[in-house]
Amino acid sequence: MALVDHNFNLPFNIIRCSHIEYGVKDLDVSRRFYVDILGFVETERTKDVIYLRGLEEKNHHCLVLKQSEVSEVYALGFKVAFDNDLDLIKIHFESLKLPAEWVTKHGEERTLRVKTPLGLPLEFHAKQTRVPTMMRAFGKHKGLMPLRFDHINCFTPNCQSTYEFFVQQLGFRLTEYTLTEKGDMWAAWTHRKGNVHDMALTNGKGPRLHHAGIWTENVNHIIHLLDVMASEGYVENIERGPGRHGISNAFFLYILDPDGHRIEPFTSDYMTVDPDWEPLGWDLRDPRRQTLWGAPAPKSWFEHGSVFHGVEVKESEIESNPIIANYEDLL
Amino acid sequence: MALVDHNFNLPFNIIRCSHIEYGVKDLDVSRRFYVDILGFVETERTKDVIYLRGLEEKNHHCLVLKQSEVSEVYALGFKVAFDNDLDLIKIHFESLKLPAEWVTKHGEERTLRVKTPLGLPLEFHAKQTRVPTMMRAFGKHKGLMPLRFDHINCFTPNCQSTYEFFVQQLGFRLTEYTLTEKGDMWAAWTHRKGNVHDMALTNGKGPRLHHAGIWTENVNHIIHLLDVMASEGYVENIERGPGRHGISNAFFLYILDPDGHRIEPFTSDYMTVDPDWEPLGWDLRDPRRQTLWGAPAPKSWFEHGSVFHGVEVKESEIESNPIIANYEDLL
Amino acid sequence: MALVDHNFNLPFNIIRCSHIEYGVKDLDVSRRFYVDILGFVETERTKDVIYLRGLEEKNHHCLVLKQSEVSEVYALGFKVAFDNDLDLIKIHFESLKLPAEWVTKHGEERTLRVKTPLGLPLEFHAKQTRVPTMMRAFGKHKGLMPLRFDHINCFTPNCQSTYEFFVQQLGFRLTEYTLTEKGDMWAAWTHRKGNVHDMALTNGKGPRLHHAGIWTENVNHIIHLLDVMASEGYVENIERGPGRHGISNAFFLYILDPDGHRIEPFTSDYMTVDPDWEPLGWDLRDPRRQTLWGAPAPKSWFEHGSVFHGVEVKESEIESNPIIANYEDLL
Amino acid sequence: MALVDHNFNLPFNIIRCSHIEYGVKDLDVSRRFYVDILGFVETERTKDVIYLRGLEEKNHHCLVLKQSEVSEVYALGFKVAFDNDLDLIKIHFESLKLPAEWVTKHGEERTLRVKTPLGLPLEFHAKQTRVPTMMRAFGKHKGLMPLRFDHINCFTPNCQSTYEFFVQQLGFRLTEYTLTEKGDMWAAWTHRKGNVHDMALTNGKGPRLHHAGIWTENVNHIIHLLDVMASEGYVENIERGPGRHGISNAFFLYILDPDGHRIEPFTSDYMTVDPDWEPLGWDLRDPRRQTLWGAPAPKSWFEHGSVFHGVEVKESEIESNPIIANYEDLL
Repeated sequence: MALVDHNFNLPFNIIRCSHIEYGVKDLDVSRRFYVDILGFVETERTKDVIYLRGLEEKNHHCLVLKQSEVSEVYALGFKVAFDNDLDLIKIHFESLKLPAEWVTKHGEERTLRVKTPLGLPLEFHAKQTRVPTMMRAFGKHKGLMPLRFDHINCFTPNCQSTYEFFVQQLGFRLTEYTLTEKGDMWAAWTHRKGNVHDMALTNGKGPRLHHAGIWTENVNHIIHLLDVMASEGYVENIERGPGRHGISNAFFLYILDPDGHRIEPFTSDYMTVDPDWEPLGWDLRDPRRQTLWGAPAPKSWFEHGSVFHGVEVKESEIESNPIIANYEDLL
Repeated sequence: MALVDHNFNLPFNIIRCSHIEYGVKDLDVSRRFYVDILGFVETERTKDVIYLRGLEEKNHHCLVLKQSEVSEVYALGFKVAFDNDLDLIKIHFESLKLPAEWVTKHGEERTLRVKTPLGLPLEFHAKQTRVPTMMRAFGKHKGLMPLRFDHINCFTPNCQSTYEFFVQQLGFRLTEYTLTEKGDMWAAWTHRKGNVHDMALTNGKGPRLHHAGIWTENVNHIIHLLDVMASEGYVENIERGPGRHGISNAFFLYILDPDGHRIEPFTSDYMTVDPDWEPLGWDLRDPRRQTLWGAPAPKSWFEHGSVFHGVEVKESEIESNPIIANYEDLL
Repeated sequence: MALVDHNFNLPFNIIRCSHIEYGVKDLDVSRRFYVDILGFVETERTKDVIYLRGLEEKNHHCLVLKQSEVSEVYALGFKVAFDNDLDLIKIHFESLKLPAEWVTKHGEERTLRVKTPLGLPLEFHAKQTRVPTMMRAFGKHKGLMPLRFDHINCFTPNCQSTYEFFVQQLGFRLTEYTLTEKGDMWAAWTHRKGNVHDMALTNGKGPRLHHAGIWTENVNHIIHLLDVMASEGYVENIERGPGRHGISNAFFLYILDPDGHRIEPFTSDYMTVDPDWEPLGWDLRDPRRQTLWGAPAPKSWFEHGSVFHGVEVKESEIESNPIIANYEDLL
Repeated sequence: MALVDHNFNLPFNIIRCSHIEYGVKDLDVSRRFYVDILGFVETERTKDVIYLRGLEEKNHHCLVLKQSEVSEVYALGFKVAFDNDLDLIKIHFESLKLPAEWVTKHGEERTLRVKTPLGLPLEFHAKQTRVPTMMRAFGKHKGLMPLRFDHINCFTPNCQSTYEFFVQQLGFRLTEYTLTEKGDMWAAWTHRKGNVHDMALTNGKGPRLHHAGIWTENVNHIIHLLDVMASEGYVENIERGPGRHGISNAFFLYILDPDGHRIEPFTSDYMTVDPDWEPLGWDLRDPRRQTLWGAPAPKSWFEHGSVFHGVEVKESEIESNPIIANYEDLL
């Protein structure tokens, strides 16, 4: 059996995923995409970095765009409850013989950078610089009207072991999952903040970032974004959707930013704060888990991801998923 | 019985109501309201006049804002099918001993100005200068996302006679109505273009303009406009709504522009192109006709209207409507 | 040049397309699809026929489901302004040496059945039995909440000649179109009632029915229908969408009924009552015309259609459209 | 200064508010309102009690309707993380010399009933009987499409002391508030689950229940409920709205059930899981806090509430709020 018990006894408290630090090749091009088209708020721009936040957010950044030679990802950010949690996480990673070091990040008080056994670069902080919410400044809302950063989805070459690490060593709780025929975890949705996910994992060549999930209020904002993208020259950046996933119940869209980083504007998942909320398992052969309705996902959606700076990408250690094997049948 | 037969035998063809020419006291203040907040497209601005159109419209103007000493209305505009219809309307009005003269209007080929027996200033044209539709330029849509001008609603001191004039002399068709207890027309909704109304008439001190109806795609755009108005300093310009009228099935909002001209952003009426569509009569005592649901209309909504330039306002010739008599009971 | 002048001088007045008469193999199976899932109102059921109407409609039927050995189409219905128009249309078709005969249809006063030169079976009536609108019975609305029948879309082996027939002999007006490289009409959208179309025509093996368009109030109702279809066992009946067409600006969905008849729930087109509304031509190579955004249409959408009872299907007389030639590139 | 520090050091963990137990005078009448009109799922009906849940909920009940001589409230329900938390809460209340006793509730494993110093009857449980979620059974959704129970709002004769109790003794966190001119708490929104509120408190004659908040996905579902209520004979049960609160950013509606218990269908608040989320204070004289936009609240909304069974109602110990003093000016 691939499922492991939830761990409610860790000494530290990770509140939620909070941000991603992207390497992008042209800041102005990225700014136009994220600010002008999607409607993110620019908190601050330095010579090499743009800091963005969602409309309801009071923290300094949820997306960090860093001028870079190549398109890649520098860090996955998480917020902890209190400053002392950072020290406790450092001790924990050291006891596991895993890298953990203090780094300096603009807009955060103290930042701890660690790596998971398979190399995912996680950064923890307790406090970001506080900035005003734009939630009630409706006259400034546009594009997707992106409210907040919601989740991270990664490819991992071993979903079973990565899932176990997030649940047992970091206290994440499983909400939905699919197993391989041998009973290993094929894909796992895990959370800290009380909705479907903060961190989702899928088997595949990795570690690589599959996408960042952005919460918006309702279906109409996603349709409006599609209209805006199509009329403003971004139709090629629309990769998949709109549609509804069986998993998570999300009404979703997948788009690619100018560097190929994938963003999922979505809405309509559900609340999972109850500790006795029972994870929902899906049969890999049930097509509704992927797409309750909507066009088949294109091949790129299964294969393309963003690499992490300086992290080696390995082939999946899990045998191939039959669903992935036959794109040709998808049409 | 107050209902008269529809007249399908007139020699001319009025297509629809097309625009209103407003006198406004400060063009910049009005522009901010209509363009920045509501999202109308500015077709052209001359020294004294701003010409606006809706997002889907290809004609030069649907709202004309003219610098004026006082807040008033200069003309109610209608489009006819062909240029020759203008000559036929002129002959028709002359045969009725009513004023009809050619006037020059920027953005229109030929314009005929007439007056109804009670003094409503109507202007007819067959062609406006053609300009591009902004319908597919979704990145430019904002505020209400106003698609097109839909209807005109006026107070008249004698609804019965005005209704008869529009139906018998101009070919309008009745869609919904309320009668007084004596069986006279209290309020009438009449159309040419095939939805609920181009011209609605209500008993009251008049002739005065009650409001201009602006069509928007759906409920969400009206809610968004409310959010925008509230956050941009226009909460006092919201007069009534949102709500749903029993009459017309419209999801409505009533707002006042900086000069007190009333605008009704609305959506969700129905198609009436069938000549045998039977008018729907409402009982004046049925509260659902006014408000299927929604807060009671404030007193101002029953009493306030815009005067027409140079047109004498008379008291209603019809006895008072019991519904109007008791605002105090509305709360 | 493939465009012909509009004909405003015909002696009769076709108001709009009104209904389709379908042959279906199992009335109960069809009823579940149209009434329980889509939410049409059942006006009447006889031994062999079910008569359906949309929520706002006051006429007896907009879809007629007739027990049949095979899945096919019996008639395309149109409403004329007055009873006398039927006689004038009969004279007109006889003068063109085309079939025109009186037939008896339940729920209609007089019905004239004609055939176009390429064999499309059209039926005209002036009056259907009047039944109550369900528009304000919101508690009964469900599924798609289908408001009214909107348009008919057919394959024709010669779009140019069929387009010319509808425009010149029946008074339809062109709103949007695409031409082949030789300058012939490839696809044409024509209307009578004042929105984008009553009758759309596309080159292809025909005559066959491509789809019936059903108007719904907004995007949310179409998304809800998708959710309902997916959860009630009809996911295989979803063929294409949701998406937005460049042509018509429609937010669309295409679904197949249990007999394979295609239905397009849609919303958000525009008003075309102005006689000087200029048709919009699209380049066949402009992918936005088909899909402003949305997944590529599947092969079935280009190829599958419903045959007309007793009408011979011919290969397209127009050379192949390059867009159609390469489904393989669509993914 | 009226604000007290949050208490992150309590030994037990209240997860969220979970349900309300209502006394209703006619079960069938209430069932029609909650199940047929609003769309709640009936989990179970015994001779005297109906148990309801929201569409996404997997727990046995979120609303309990109990046959009663009078319309009143029996209990406010809260879920704790683990069974042992119940024992720790019992010890805590006993140490505070407050009532705490085990009671038997159908559908819950163990239930602890306590009273706050001013008499609010709270019931805690760790486990309810698990039942299927109806979230993906879209074909069964109707009315409001109520997803889940969200919050409780009560009148209290001393908001300052009740607020302090919930924050200091139960670990609730303040998100928004208004102070009297003397600096006492006038109204307070406090949460456990990470959105704006689980428990809101307002000064007034009490303790009494002001309303239960029900989460729905978007604005359109609330508008649809209004249409359904108006057409199904429940227009008198609509008390206030729709509108948007400045506080909580909620798009709201207030309706009264057949016993006068007030329900708030709402959507669109925000996430507050960050422990350093700073409470937002509103000026009592700022009308946007109550109503960002929307018609003024009727007098009943300020005055009417449901009494708790066997709990004495006291006059407010706080001097009158000027906003409340002049309903007459509201129109």
